[in-house]
Amino acid sequence: MTPVPPAAARAGDTRDRLLATALELFAQHGVEGTSLQMIADALGVTKAAVYYHFKTKDEITEAVAEPALRQLGTIAREATTLRRRGAQVDHVLAGIVELVVGHRALAAVFSSDPGVARALERTLHEEGNVKECLTDLLCGGDSDPAAKVAAHVAMLGIALAGGSPGLDSLTDDELRRHLMEAGRRLLGRPRRRD
Amino acid sequence: MTPVPPAAARAGDTRDRLLATALELFAQHGVEGTSLQMIADALGVTKAAVYYHFKTKDEITEAVAEPALRQLGTIAREATTLRRRGAQVDHVLAGIVELVVGHRALAAVFSSDPGVARALERTLHEEGNVKECLTDLLCGGDSDPAAKVAAHVAMLGIALAGGSPGLDSLTDDELRRHLMEAGRRLLGRPRRRD
Repeated sequence: MTPVPPAAARAGDTRDRLLATALELFAQHGVEGTSLQMIADALGVTKAAVYYHFKTKDEITEAVAEPALRQLGTIAREATTLRRRGAQVDHVLAGIVELVVGHRALAAVFSSDPGVARALERTLHEEGNVKECLTDLLCGGDSDPAAKVAAHVAMLGIALAGGSPGLDSLTDDELRRHLMEAGRRLLGRPRRRD
Repeated sequence: MTPVPPAAARAGDTRDRLLATALELFAQHGVEGTSLQMIADALGVTKAAVYYHFKTKDEITEAVAEPALRQLGTIAREATTLRRRGAQVDHVLAGIVELVVGHRALAAVFSSDPGVARALERTLHEEGNVKECLTDLLCGGDSDPAAKVAAHVAMLGIALAGGSPGLDSLTDDELRRHLMEAGRRLLGRPRRRD
């Protein structure tokens, strides 16, 4: 006989399945076109079971985006511990690209759906302006306008291109490699040998 | 005695003032934080006068963004009449940069507010997928993944960086010059002599 998992573990499991299901439905119907009832139906649970975890769809949207956004904060903190400017730029660039490639479904929903964009802005705000911190790292604290503009184009362009339907046909490896190349070219970093 | 303008001309004038006022309020309070009553108050007219032109805030949002978006369609059509790939890329790049710099207030509202993003998507859709057409032009119809990724990063990055609060302090000339430089570097176009 397999032991019955404790209630807390089962609740955690349901929460994870709920978030994965919500992301799938968001990708298909958009955040606005997805209801709590649809999420409950897709999970095969009652709406009350969904309410147990999240009171509103906004709470679900934020929870779906949260892990990816916390990772941005981690990338920024790690980069500040590096000595050389080049190493900082490479770390932030690789971190953003990895995040986008690892969360393509989320990036796609984000780049096409206002509901997720709103949730992202809220979480980014809580993370102590991580967006500004990352662009500062990308331009090496350089106040030269050309460097600042390039850093903004790189960060926003990579984040949104990663979820663009026009690039759906690329494999993760292709997307990763070419986003890195684009970022490095934009920021004046030398081409990698590999 | 100055002649009284015909009713139609006055109505057109009110519509323009209404849209300019709406954009200002959107920039201050966001689209969601702006009501039809606030627009009426700022214009010093009744809410009925606003209703005469627009039935919903969505209609106002679309009308605010429309001229800029129609211009995207024009840029794409003009570019397709050019023979050389380099000339097409330069025309699209300069067109997008000019549009962003000429509508910084709109770009700022767009990049931070979901309501405008939604209106933009609708209008872009009506324009017969102008976004895809522009990225195709930027990569010269090249199906090479590296070129496609660079084109997406350039278009989305320029559009959003132009409205980024982090670049507010730049003059229009600086913003234009550095966005062009970033785009050219990304797309492998030679540096301009000027």
